[in-house]
Amino acid sequence: MLELWELGGRDGVRFSTFSWRSRMALHHKGLDFVSRAVAVSDKDAIAFSGQDKVPILKSGDQVVCDSWNIAQYLEREFPNRPSLFGGPAGDQLTYFFNLWVDREIVPGLVPFLMRDVLDCVEEQDQSHLRTQIERIFKRSLEELYAEREKALSQLGKKLSPVRKLLSRAPFIAGNEPAYADYILFGTLQWARVVSEVEVLSPDDLVAQWFVRLLNLYGGVGRAERARKERTAEAVQ
Amino acid sequence: MLELWELGGRDGVRFSTFSWRSRMALHHKGLDFVSRAVAVSDKDAIAFSGQDKVPILKSGDQVVCDSWNIAQYLEREFPNRPSLFGGPAGDQLTYFFNLWVDREIVPGLVPFLMRDVLDCVEEQDQSHLRTQIERIFKRSLEELYAEREKALSQLGKKLSPVRKLLSRAPFIAGNEPAYADYILFGTLQWARVVSEVEVLSPDDLVAQWFVRLLNLYGGVGRAERARKERTAEAVQ
Repeated sequence: MLELWELGGRDGVRFSTFSWRSRMALHHKGLDFVSRAVAVSDKDAIAFSGQDKVPILKSGDQVVCDSWNIAQYLEREFPNRPSLFGGPAGDQLTYFFNLWVDREIVPGLVPFLMRDVLDCVEEQDQSHLRTQIERIFKRSLEELYAEREKALSQLGKKLSPVRKLLSRAPFIAGNEPAYADYILFGTLQWARVVSEVEVLSPDDLVAQWFVRLLNLYGGVGRAERARKERTAEAVQ
Repeated sequence: MLELWELGGRDGVRFSTFSWRSRMALHHKGLDFVSRAVAVSDKDAIAFSGQDKVPILKSGDQVVCDSWNIAQYLEREFPNRPSLFGGPAGDQLTYFFNLWVDREIVPGLVPFLMRDVLDCVEEQDQSHLRTQIERIFKRSLEELYAEREKALSQLGKKLSPVRKLLSRAPFIAGNEPAYADYILFGTLQWARVVSEVEVLSPDDLVAQWFVRLLNLYGGVGRAERARKERTAEAVQ
């Protein structure tokens, strides 16, 4: 049995940008898996992995840490199912895209909406997250949040090469989605799940691609309700 | 017959970063071609293409402009020869890499060594090139050249994701070279042909990869002599 150990928030909400990469990779391969929620501050729960980060994929005795390694593991173990990379060149260049998203896109979005994450996690995790992020950025989450408009405008510009890919084909990986798509999807899904801030204008090619990604695999991305939807429900 | 129209300098030296992409793509496909040298300022020579930039690939009546379009054309016309992209995901992600190199690497190197290009071209091209670059950067070629150390240090940092790819496999595209390799090769080959400045330390993984690229296809890259070699010969 495949187990995906991943961050879980209040009411079990799944918001981690990196575990969404792994979730989509598992669906791409058509594999059943059990999701094990781990609270941000609960390092004991994943001590079995010999390190302190999620996502972790566990398959019997095998333990694979880090979303990139999980994707590589799935491709290696399930070679006869749809490919995540589309061959050796695709594998290397998807790795390049992974590095680019981690370096250019994640830090350009995640810190600025981190304040909103606090409402999505249990109390003990709130102070843990706040301390962690504020230590890295030497500013309060509220100060970072106040800079979100500028950050979003920069993000919009940084995504311009992705827009060029999407003007050639419906997915980053071409006519069919693959792991490169899930890499970027994870970050925008994180924003959708934790915040009500509109990250992309609906007429942006990237926003239209994101809708296609939400609809994949029976709408598993969409089934994780957006912050906006959860708020509306709470009000009723 | 395939004709590659490309920049040619004094004594026929081929230095264009973009035409080296196309040259390597033609060799990758095992195709014979004739190289037609065009001086930087000679727009009449390529008027047949309906635009004013090289490289241009001419095949009978067909005219293909722009190195990326040339690579796409070769892949489409010669599908049974070794693939330049390795499938649809590789095609899209190689395009992403092409955009990245054009945006991050070319402008981080080319302006700073452009002063050296002047010695490689005929006199009428020297003033053309100087005017063109100095207008864009609002600084003299000598001022740009004076900033080369800082530019090279930044280039070294920008190449760090490429280094990560090369720690996984001998080529950017994996175990075999493909168009992604030629994209970056073109820029470093430009530097090698036009300047004596050492762009990368020899123990850099990227420098070691560049040597592998110079050796491909009977050493066609190496056969275009480095500025250093031409200078040594002139001194004798």
